[in-house]
Amino acid sequence: MSLMVVGSVAFDAIETPHGKVDRTLGGAASYFALAASQFTKVRLVGVVGDDFSKRDEQVLRDRKIDLEGLERASGKTFFWAGRYSQNMNERTTLATELNVFAQFNPKLPPAYRESPNIFLANIDPTLQLSVLKQVTVKPKIVALDTMNYWIERTPAELRETLKHAQILMINDDETRQLSGQHNLLRAAKHIFGLGPKTLVIKRGEHGALMIHNRFMFSIPGFPLEEVHDPTGAGDSFAGGFMGYLSTVGRITDGSLKCAMVYGSVLGSFAVEKFGVERLKTLTKREVVTRAKRFSNLTSFKL
Amino acid sequence: MSLMVVGSVAFDAIETPHGKVDRTLGGAASYFALAASQFTKVRLVGVVGDDFSKRDEQVLRDRKIDLEGLERASGKTFFWAGRYSQNMNERTTLATELNVFAQFNPKLPPAYRESPNIFLANIDPTLQLSVLKQVTVKPKIVALDTMNYWIERTPAELRETLKHAQILMINDDETRQLSGQHNLLRAAKHIFGLGPKTLVIKRGEHGALMIHNRFMFSIPGFPLEEVHDPTGAGDSFAGGFMGYLSTVGRITDGSLKCAMVYGSVLGSFAVEKFGVERLKTLTKREVVTRAKRFSNLTSFKL
Repeated sequence: MSLMVVGSVAFDAIETPHGKVDRTLGGAASYFALAASQFTKVRLVGVVGDDFSKRDEQVLRDRKIDLEGLERASGKTFFWAGRYSQNMNERTTLATELNVFAQFNPKLPPAYRESPNIFLANIDPTLQLSVLKQVTVKPKIVALDTMNYWIERTPAELRETLKHAQILMINDDETRQLSGQHNLLRAAKHIFGLGPKTLVIKRGEHGALMIHNRFMFSIPGFPLEEVHDPTGAGDSFAGGFMGYLSTVGRITDGSLKCAMVYGSVLGSFAVEKFGVERLKTLTKREVVTRAKRFSNLTSFKL
Repeated sequence: MSLMVVGSVAFDAIETPHGKVDRTLGGAASYFALAASQFTKVRLVGVVGDDFSKRDEQVLRDRKIDLEGLERASGKTFFWAGRYSQNMNERTTLATELNVFAQFNPKLPPAYRESPNIFLANIDPTLQLSVLKQVTVKPKIVALDTMNYWIERTPAELRETLKHAQILMINDDETRQLSGQHNLLRAAKHIFGLGPKTLVIKRGEHGALMIHNRFMFSIPGFPLEEVHDPTGAGDSFAGGFMGYLSTVGRITDGSLKCAMVYGSVLGSFAVEKFGVERLKTLTKREVVTRAKRFSNLTSFKL
């Protein structure tokens, strides 16, 4: 079943100890869509400027991503520049030029209004809510991402949006900040009260932890010999997670666990090359093989 | 089969956000022995002072730990005091009084010289080597722990000792420091060249990663609602790991993976109460139940 993502499409300038690129396709929605496209048809809602060329677009089209929801606005595309430290555990933002993204006001094409599966990437919670209000058929699965900026500045709006989400995907710090609880289990209980009954805590190289109101599930980061660029790892994780879940179409303990695995698979591939390069060439066979390697990495018999 | 541990026995003063204790049994060998005693007969080699009472000793005896190798020296027992930060992710050492431990020179009682399984806790590598030289029958399994202090100050002695170990158990930072490699897979390859063919990287709340020259295995930290005192978690992990492995008596892929699970089980229990309190009352049934919970936490079916 199709999956709609709403979020940023950007150009990124990235510098890591392995090299640099001046202008490459980026943004949460791009990573998410490319990752999710391994599993299902993805509809992308975002905005780009005049500088977004046919060639840029083709990267997404090559993965059969539906771009009817990608608005063209007059001006420049969102631009982000960042530099990673020697060990890639710290990132310095060098530039954030919102450009056309500053006026982003997502408008769903008619065909998108019945999307059964929705991922609201990290944008203003008011916009996330406006997307849900445009949906005419109650979706099966709504997942969302957010960040400290919105938790601090628009807590009321975020709470309103959270009421409509089944799954919240954030990192450790955001979990603690949103709940006011340092302990992640207590934080999760607090968050269950806000709406989502599934909390997915993204922990970078340490993997991800899912706390559901019935069970917990943990998956490690995949140990890699070469990490070239961590940009987009979390969004690729979300794409793999939601892409897989959309093919099942139901939230069950089993489907959520597999979604965690496929999320981790996509996140682990994303960081192997700069920007979206690795996701562009990734095959389903590679995805399946790495999922099995995750199984080898974690399974044991008592 | 019996298991010998050589390391510190101490009194600890510990302060965490959950409370404080002024003087409680501590030291790597104490935690290790209490944890390992869930699985096998443990022989403890260490040194204590005149202030180490029959009652202190009884804590170890109650778990059937063999104390023939626990030397009594004139003076005070090793004393350590530390305080944990609000989130318990940082620890400040308030006092380190080596006392009788400063002159520690491990002497194995005759019965210990044929120990098939040996754990060399974090002490001077020269002393670790002297222990191995006293062993008269080639042991089946030798594992060791070390720390930045020895990696920096006695690198040659540490390298010599490492030649005799099959398993090295250290944390992320120590792995990187010892190998000069930031990437853990490359670090492991470097370490395989030094002797051990199994590297166990302890990652605190993030669990543990095993890199063997044939396979990798990862286990998450067990999500707990209450962590009262992180002291001794790593040594309890090592105790659970080696205790289990000693019952199997052979290093196989399967036994190493299960050892990782039981290590994590013991580490997770150790932090639930102050000092060794939780390990004192822990039952085999609780150990088995938590091992199954680790299975639920990590297993999935693709």
